[in-house]
Amino acid sequence: MSGDLKRDMHALGAAARDAARALRESSNDTRSEALRVAASALRARAPEILAANAEDLKAAAHSSAAMLDRLTLNEISVEAIACGLEAIAALPDPLARTLAHWKQPNGLDISRVATPIGVIGMIYESRPNVTADAAALCIKSGNAVILRGGSDSLRSSRAIHAAMLDGLQAAGLPGACVQLAQTTDRAAVGEMLQGLNGAIDLIIPRGGKSLVARVQAEARVPVLAHLEGICHVYVHAAAKLEMARAVVLNAKMRRTGVCGAAETLLIDRAVLSSHGVSILNDLKNAGCEIRGDEAVRSVFPSAKLANDEDWRTEYLDAVIAVKSVDGVEEAIRHIETYGSHHTESIVTGDAAVAERFLAALDSAIVLWNASTQFADGGEFGMGAEIGIGTGKLHARGPVGVEQLTTFKYIVRGTGQTRP
Amino acid sequence: MSGDLKRDMHALGAAARDAARALRESSNDTRSEALRVAASALRARAPEILAANAEDLKAAAHSSAAMLDRLTLNEISVEAIACGLEAIAALPDPLARTLAHWKQPNGLDISRVATPIGVIGMIYESRPNVTADAAALCIKSGNAVILRGGSDSLRSSRAIHAAMLDGLQAAGLPGACVQLAQTTDRAAVGEMLQGLNGAIDLIIPRGGKSLVARVQAEARVPVLAHLEGICHVYVHAAAKLEMARAVVLNAKMRRTGVCGAAETLLIDRAVLSSHGVSILNDLKNAGCEIRGDEAVRSVFPSAKLANDEDWRTEYLDAVIAVKSVDGVEEAIRHIETYGSHHTESIVTGDAAVAERFLAALDSAIVLWNASTQFADGGEFGMGAEIGIGTGKLHARGPVGVEQLTTFKYIVRGTGQTRP
Repeated sequence: MSGDLKRDMHALGAAARDAARALRESSNDTRSEALRVAASALRARAPEILAANAEDLKAAAHSSAAMLDRLTLNEISVEAIACGLEAIAALPDPLARTLAHWKQPNGLDISRVATPIGVIGMIYESRPNVTADAAALCIKSGNAVILRGGSDSLRSSRAIHAAMLDGLQAAGLPGACVQLAQTTDRAAVGEMLQGLNGAIDLIIPRGGKSLVARVQAEARVPVLAHLEGICHVYVHAAAKLEMARAVVLNAKMRRTGVCGAAETLLIDRAVLSSHGVSILNDLKNAGCEIRGDEAVRSVFPSAKLANDEDWRTEYLDAVIAVKSVDGVEEAIRHIETYGSHHTESIVTGDAAVAERFLAALDSAIVLWNASTQFADGGEFGMGAEIGIGTGKLHARGPVGVEQLTTFKYIVRGTGQTRP
Repeated sequence: MSGDLKRDMHALGAAARDAARALRESSNDTRSEALRVAASALRARAPEILAANAEDLKAAAHSSAAMLDRLTLNEISVEAIACGLEAIAALPDPLARTLAHWKQPNGLDISRVATPIGVIGMIYESRPNVTADAAALCIKSGNAVILRGGSDSLRSSRAIHAAMLDGLQAAGLPGACVQLAQTTDRAAVGEMLQGLNGAIDLIIPRGGKSLVARVQAEARVPVLAHLEGICHVYVHAAAKLEMARAVVLNAKMRRTGVCGAAETLLIDRAVLSSHGVSILNDLKNAGCEIRGDEAVRSVFPSAKLANDEDWRTEYLDAVIAVKSVDGVEEAIRHIETYGSHHTESIVTGDAAVAERFLAALDSAIVLWNASTQFADGGEFGMGAEIGIGTGKLHARGPVGVEQLTTFKYIVRGTGQTRP
């Protein structure tokens, strides 16, 4: 049985490798056409997609409300998925990029050109829309993808996958450009993390911390991911009060379950009474629980006492940890100690302090006078994202179609030999 | 004892992390000054470096000639190392680069700027010069480095390391920017491959295939490397004979032990008699063993018969495998089947065929009418290289100071919140 699984998964890998070659040699018109036809097919297949989703929901009836929310599709969300495919189709060709070009004194003409990565392994949880989004981003960037979604959404994902296959077929691309691991056996994930006999170039996990942690611990191939987003907003003494109120409230409360949501607020002691109280009142009135240090509690007594664990916690909920600091250097030290290198924002009218904060922090995204919730490929103008990376290699921050490419060097000569 | 080793290695990791922070905040002038002073210190310390090297050589007296050759330093090679440091010091600041910059419709000003990777773990064999070269490339690019060279060269490496420390001290940088794992215990490598408790961001192995294979198999952090360089030269029917002769001879025989040396020659059947015989005579006269397929042997009877294993072999020696093909598509298929995605060259006067070859191959470097021995950071104009990558993520091809950087996004706003 486990031998069968291994064989089946390796067959997916081999087929993906062949499909990747076809994609690498395809034109942007062909890849975009596949996405546009898939969008039409999604609309046409909406009834069967929703029927499959209803079966998934019935089987998952015992699950948490948050889980059911992630799993649920309706006519509006299917239309949104179709529009997403069309938007990705309309993006500029990420493979038509010469990243650098120069000539050597010996006449060699060297260019660095974008190329697809190859085969992506996408491991995600129960959001069925990821099946279409990830497939579309991979196709557009010339990569084959093997999708392994959560078992709870398998029926929905199959129905969406059928629409993607319609698009590939219409464009004359192999169906194996987008393959869905059809098994609910969790060992399939383990096989993918081993790389399917060298077939997978990159694993992208998308889901909760335990999924990402397992992938990072077990993968034998490169992984692009973020484990958590412990994002900070630092309100500096020279912050304008109204701007600080708006940015903090938005950073924490616009959506609390996204990785770019602020989890810790740092406030200069000098403005704890003048700014802090208003900001914390806004948060409290919006339904947010406040956990502060002693200084924070002295001006805002209804706050609970925060402990060391709070500074390390990604709540993904209406809770915020609030710490008083003495200036930008202490803020930087706190973030470097407790942060997750995801996204941090400073609110200040002092440009020199802002530039110090922006330069010193080693996070994927650092902002000045803007909400951490802008940590998103769409908001960055990338069209769409497959995830956000906080590692140091390849892409950091939002991962869109350009970040799903690598490069090679093309060298044109006239018979040069090396002395 | 093994607990001590773990503790010692983790201490190196923690010190490197602190040093990386200091480097990240240092100026290019400071980092370059450290390299220039280190170059002077190398020259001043040449007698003690050569004395240490003599001890290493004495202890390694039983080793192979090739190994002794790699290990041996003399006054000329010490001067060359010092000049290398000065050349790296003179390179443009790889951290002073804005890689992209744009404005969003909502006024957010987004820039992608180069930043250091952090802490590099360098694992290499017995070439003592790597101690200086790798340290210099890491310092210049703002990265701390932990060096673990071969036990055979430990005395030489210590003496060179002392000169690097002189440079760091003179520039006011922490000595922990460049640390040498002083133990000869092989378990130290295992500790580094585990990442030293999250301290190491990237491992770069440099050495033979067995070292790189071990690193790739065991590392729990990203690795930048190439396992082997099975490089091809394809002589197309429209190749000019004299150019083909010069390029093939240089690609194979200029230096046979480097990763960019050609290992397999592909020749169109149509020119096997006209071109092939001359090319193979050149190789044979230069002392190269020829292993060919039946068609090759029919025009060049002194060739041994090649078998399937030859197409997969990186000889790193004066041996070449020669295969006849029917045109560019067969050449591409052969390279995709047997190659290692390192470096391949086509010799042809037909531009359309050349462009097909350059576009279709998924290798880090593809050349037209030039020797594969140009696969080198110096020859690419990068100043120096720490190695060559054949993976898909981050950097492919020569890895110089720019490739030793990553990036972050800096977003400047005026109080924007996300709708």
